[in-house]
Amino acid sequence: MLTLFYYPGACSLVPHIVLEEAGAVYERHLVDYAGGEHLSPEYRAISPLGRVPALLTDRGPLIENPAILAYIAQSHPDAALVPFDDPFAFARVQSFNLFIANNIHVAFRQISFPDSYADGKDAATALRNKVPELADRYFAVIEKGLADGRPFVHGERFTISDAYLFVYANYLRMGDRGDPSRLPHVIAHRSRIRARAAVQHILEIEKLADAWPA
Amino acid sequence: MLTLFYYPGACSLVPHIVLEEAGAVYERHLVDYAGGEHLSPEYRAISPLGRVPALLTDRGPLIENPAILAYIAQSHPDAALVPFDDPFAFARVQSFNLFIANNIHVAFRQISFPDSYADGKDAATALRNKVPELADRYFAVIEKGLADGRPFVHGERFTISDAYLFVYANYLRMGDRGDPSRLPHVIAHRSRIRARAAVQHILEIEKLADAWPA
Repeated sequence: MLTLFYYPGACSLVPHIVLEEAGAVYERHLVDYAGGEHLSPEYRAISPLGRVPALLTDRGPLIENPAILAYIAQSHPDAALVPFDDPFAFARVQSFNLFIANNIHVAFRQISFPDSYADGKDAATALRNKVPELADRYFAVIEKGLADGRPFVHGERFTISDAYLFVYANYLRMGDRGDPSRLPHVIAHRSRIRARAAVQHILEIEKLADAWPA
Repeated sequence: MLTLFYYPGACSLVPHIVLEEAGAVYERHLVDYAGGEHLSPEYRAISPLGRVPALLTDRGPLIENPAILAYIAQSHPDAALVPFDDPFAFARVQSFNLFIANNIHVAFRQISFPDSYADGKDAATALRNKVPELADRYFAVIEKGLADGRPFVHGERFTISDAYLFVYANYLRMGDRGDPSRLPHVIAHRSRIRARAAVQHILEIEKLADAWPA
């Protein structure tokens, strides 16, 4: 059995969608941040920094989003969510996912957790003020990759990268992180992924269906 | 043919070591940062943000260190640098590599590239001042994982994670990023990896053999 440790609207939404797309048998556990569960020794044994997502498997826990996504895909081969048998194609999927993790995710965390980078109010303000510029720079690379009109990030098939981009493209709705009007292909992709049955189902569960309309 | 785009001592050292451990046939290209090569349209077509490492393959470029490392390992199966056939074991390798990429690497970049996070001298100072605390927190997780005396990150066999940890454990020598005296197992691991023939060879090429002694 797999258990996803998540928080609604957090980046754990990506593996949540991918578990559903994979047809996985899994349970979900909402981490009680308000109650301090993320600080408990039990949760730290699963996720040493107290973060979501974490995926508990029968053999132990996994952390870090791109690793969790690849694991779900590789252990549910019938869903064909990643081209594992082709090292280059798989590496392109990973390059894309890591580009989000190492750049866009790091930038967006500057808004919600500036003290992960520097202490003090002034530093927090400077970290937050920089985010629109960074988001524009990073999303421009993705926009360019979609500009040939491909329906999915890597071409004609849905992969784990599409779920990853979908979630971060929705964070653009928050308004303090770059200019979505520069990203017509990213926004069209967002609408396309929003229409998938698995995505709709998970957005209902995380109570995001109204906040993230089609 | 593979071409590694690198800069001596940068985190491109990790795939440089892994190419050698894999017995790969490859060329190396030193990116001329002083001459602005990283800003050229030619290099941006390979690495959109102008960073190293990048790995150019016959089918196109790859970026982001954990993706490049997994690609080298998967396309050189005889070297057995990653347990690809076991999705959980492979995911553990990826979790570890991403933990470095998303945490330790992000923190160390605050020293060399604070303007990747926030603008201004005061913000740069705040970003740099935070690094020792962050490095201590993140490396403590890795130290705990090695505390059972295992010779390599994932047990009895060398994997791509060992090359990754080796490079970042050497960055601790610079003195402005945490307290290595709290990390006896990490430092013992560093010495163990330093003794490998492939590692010694690449440190000679990148002119680090003296700066990073056994």
